Amino acid sequence: MYIIGERINGMFKDVKQALRDRDASVIQDLAKRQTAAGATALDVNVGPAVSDAQGAMLWLVETIRQVTDAPLVIDTAKWEIMSTVVPQVPGEKIINSSKADVEIASQYASLAQENGAGLIGLTIDADGVPGNVEKRVELGAQLITVAMEAGLEMDRLFIDPIILPVNVSPKNPTQCMEAITQIRAFADPPPHLLLGLSNVSQRCNNRRLINRTYLVMAMSRGLDAVIMDPLDKELVDAAITAELLMEKMIYCDSYLEAARQ
Amino acid sequence: MYIIGERINGMFKDVKQALRDRDASVIQDLAKRQTAAGATALDVNVGPAVSDAQGAMLWLVETIRQVTDAPLVIDTAKWEIMSTVVPQVPGEKIINSSKADVEIASQYASLAQENGAGLIGLTIDADGVPGNVEKRVELGAQLITVAMEAGLEMDRLFIDPIILPVNVSPKNPTQCMEAITQIRAFADPPPHLLLGLSNVSQRCNNRRLINRTYLVMAMSRGLDAVIMDPLDKELVDAAITAELLMEKMIYCDSYLEAARQ
Repeated sequence: MYIIGERINGMFKDVKQALRDRDASVIQDLAKRQTAAGATALDVNVGPAVSDAQGAMLWLVETIRQVTDAPLVIDTAKWEIMSTVVPQVPGEKIINSSKADVEIASQYASLAQENGAGLIGLTIDADGVPGNVEKRVELGAQLITVAMEAGLEMDRLFIDPIILPVNVSPKNPTQCMEAITQIRAFADPPPHLLLGLSNVSQRCNNRRLINRTYLVMAMSRGLDAVIMDPLDKELVDAAITAELLMEKMIYCDSYLEAARQ
Repeated sequence: MYIIGERINGMFKDVKQALRDRDASVIQDLAKRQTAAGATALDVNVGPAVSDAQGAMLWLVETIRQVTDAPLVIDTAKWEIMSTVVPQVPGEKIINSSKADVEIASQYASLAQENGAGLIGLTIDADGVPGNVEKRVELGAQLITVAMEAGLEMDRLFIDPIILPVNVSPKNPTQCMEAITQIRAFADPPPHLLLGLSNVSQRCNNRRLINRTYLVMAMSRGLDAVIMDPLDKELVDAAITAELLMEKMIYCDSYLEAARQ
């Protein structure tokens, strides 16, 4: 499972404060703890309402790079920041994210290709988040085509069918699972299928139970990448156990520990 | 989710002892606790090496019926016991189980039809448990055909693709999930798809984690019935949450409690 740690995000209070104070230790601690807990890559998001978002992003990148070589997932909705920051990120990096409109996606795919970066593409376009499976799959196929035309290998493309909270969009979790299965079938080898997991349980009770239940259900339908909190040990345990049950590893009595090494 | 409680089985020490002593209170307590915890039906199995297995089964049935109207799942591999006991079970009942060989399955399907019972059919024949998906699906289709010819409606047929322990049969959990999806597609409305869940984790560490992870993964592939321990609260919580995420219920803050009522 390609786990992208979600914790370095200015919407969390500790990160917001660390950004204000330019306190590297808080950020580096979060980077080290997330990779130790099982994160393959680290999301980097300055959060809403930060002054000098670009400077803040560059400081985060530089600060994190001092302690880990993990791929950094540059998470901003602003093209100006993305296009300026990505070329300055040393080592592996992923662009998070592009919408699926052809013109926009082509621009982001070129940026990815020119900088040896991965690309997260959302199945959303000018009409917003699709309300059905068919439109999600159509936009997923569109992202695959655009990425191929830009020369991106499928293992550098992550398609995110966009999960919405189950308490306000009850049909959405089912639709995302079905879209994951169908989009995977469009290319061989397939692109990665990814979700921003914690969104499924926004403002719900039993958030961690909902997150880990949905994660393994979606994995059994083809999900192979996820943005989530790797510091939630039960969530990582569930992901590892799902991989065991999908024959991605062989059982041993200490399989949970073995998978983390 | 059609949950069949597995605890009234002579392989458990408390039940074995209660059978020896003909101690109704132990059995009735297990019946009441399982239905209160979310079981729809109750498996009834005298276990191995019991003297007068038929008399023991009839005593269990009578004892349980004094405290619940839940369907009783008569669990024995012996045709003589099954064919004698099933006509004597008051109320709803399910035969557990028939193999998929046409001659055997026809005999069991007739017994089910004559007694208004449900039928659990295993995807196993004279050649044993299939080592691949194709053979499981073939035997599932065979069970559907035999049941239809006997006049059984699909909502009275439960097909069990037979889960083996992940520590000795690493391919098996994946194959069962795929078989579940494919067998469901053979009839409309489909039969129930069922697993004897705890077998997946026999002699494994983290048994309860493996059980609840596999349960919700299989549910997302089409599993809608399961033989399991309803007294494992985390397991029932996972099943309820999976149903929420498959749009079988609407979210409310107390959805876990609401589903149990």
